[in-house]
Amino acid sequence: MPVVPAKEKMTKFKPERTTSNSFASAIIPSGAISRMAIYLRELQQLQRSGIDTINSSQLGERLGFTDSQVRRDLGAIGAVGRRGVGYSTSQLCQTIRSAIGTDRDWNIALVGMGNLGQALAGYRGFETQGFRLVAAIDLDQAKVGKKVGKLTIKSIDQFDSVVARTPIQLAILAVPAEVAPDVAERLAKSGVLGILNFAPTNVRSPKTCIPVIDVDMAIELQRLAFAVVNQEASR
Amino acid sequence: MPVVPAKEKMTKFKPERTTSNSFASAIIPSGAISRMAIYLRELQQLQRSGIDTINSSQLGERLGFTDSQVRRDLGAIGAVGRRGVGYSTSQLCQTIRSAIGTDRDWNIALVGMGNLGQALAGYRGFETQGFRLVAAIDLDQAKVGKKVGKLTIKSIDQFDSVVARTPIQLAILAVPAEVAPDVAERLAKSGVLGILNFAPTNVRSPKTCIPVIDVDMAIELQRLAFAVVNQEASR
Repeated sequence: MPVVPAKEKMTKFKPERTTSNSFASAIIPSGAISRMAIYLRELQQLQRSGIDTINSSQLGERLGFTDSQVRRDLGAIGAVGRRGVGYSTSQLCQTIRSAIGTDRDWNIALVGMGNLGQALAGYRGFETQGFRLVAAIDLDQAKVGKKVGKLTIKSIDQFDSVVARTPIQLAILAVPAEVAPDVAERLAKSGVLGILNFAPTNVRSPKTCIPVIDVDMAIELQRLAFAVVNQEASR
Repeated sequence: MPVVPAKEKMTKFKPERTTSNSFASAIIPSGAISRMAIYLRELQQLQRSGIDTINSSQLGERLGFTDSQVRRDLGAIGAVGRRGVGYSTSQLCQTIRSAIGTDRDWNIALVGMGNLGQALAGYRGFETQGFRLVAAIDLDQAKVGKKVGKLTIKSIDQFDSVVARTPIQLAILAVPAEVAPDVAERLAKSGVLGILNFAPTNVRSPKTCIPVIDVDMAIELQRLAFAVVNQEASR
């Protein structure tokens, strides 16, 4: 029963949750989450460029969203800009992070160290958002013991002992489709709370009752094809 | 002006569009497209397993969607199941493909041949959905001329001559964030109709007025973190 260890980890997790999280969780529509993350990425870029304030229409213009969309989204998480000045970029970053739940650190296991796993291990964008890659796992014994960046690849059979030393909340699943559902079930059993699934198959099941976000490149291409056809049709 | 070549390619493209496309384009809510692609993937797996018919509740159960969600989605694209039998898997695949716009072939250029580009070049899931990888492009002259699978890596400066020989409708952008906006603009100028953007930055601009779908791993992880926090909060 995967629920038991998962529950256990959730309890450990609870004290860290801020009030703004629970507040935001209740009211952010799930479609707005991607936009929140896009605002955050842009605000962080602005911060690095030394820009301290921005208003909703400037932010919207940079990202292709309308002014009112931006104000509605940011209003929903309780962010208030100052009239004639706009939002403080650093404060808005903080508000968004706390609303999404990335104002705390998340430990990540990367499972599957093929080409995609290797690419993901080298991806620089994780750490800046509070995600810490703490374990690299593979099913292939030939890969176990090899280094990927600072991490040594561990076998999936060692996963429980890895988790015992370093709690792992999220897993990135980059294994072949054939084995993905089984691996997802094992991860959930070991107390992983959510899976980012790159395997082009469905890994949800009654035995894997944790949130799964799918990143299927073919599905993304299909969304793009649809957007292109749709744009053509509307001309 | 990127609009001119893009328009030109759109005109060439028009005769291929089916009536069901324009019909579907008008009424599928954009949020449903990902679900359509997920139904399609599952139906194709069922077909390969020799399963000829399925009803909405079975399909929903396999994917974690409600019966009524499935019926609403499929009804919106004009798919009708037979009472007591369900949908024909092969016919439903066809209906979905025509609704999304993947009943025609799409030629793809992969731009950026680092770790991620290499991983994407080896990704098997594209071809089965009607996407044909026809060009591999890099900015780094040291990589130009090398082989990736059956493709020879070309320089971005050769892109126009590549397109002149083989029309390219979509590009997958896997270059570093710093150069991504410029590269996106060049691709749009060369007549590319849509971009799947893996660079962790915004590539939309008034000069790149074509559809862009972003795949930012950090954003997907943030969506996952939010789903986990949200699930905790709702318990």
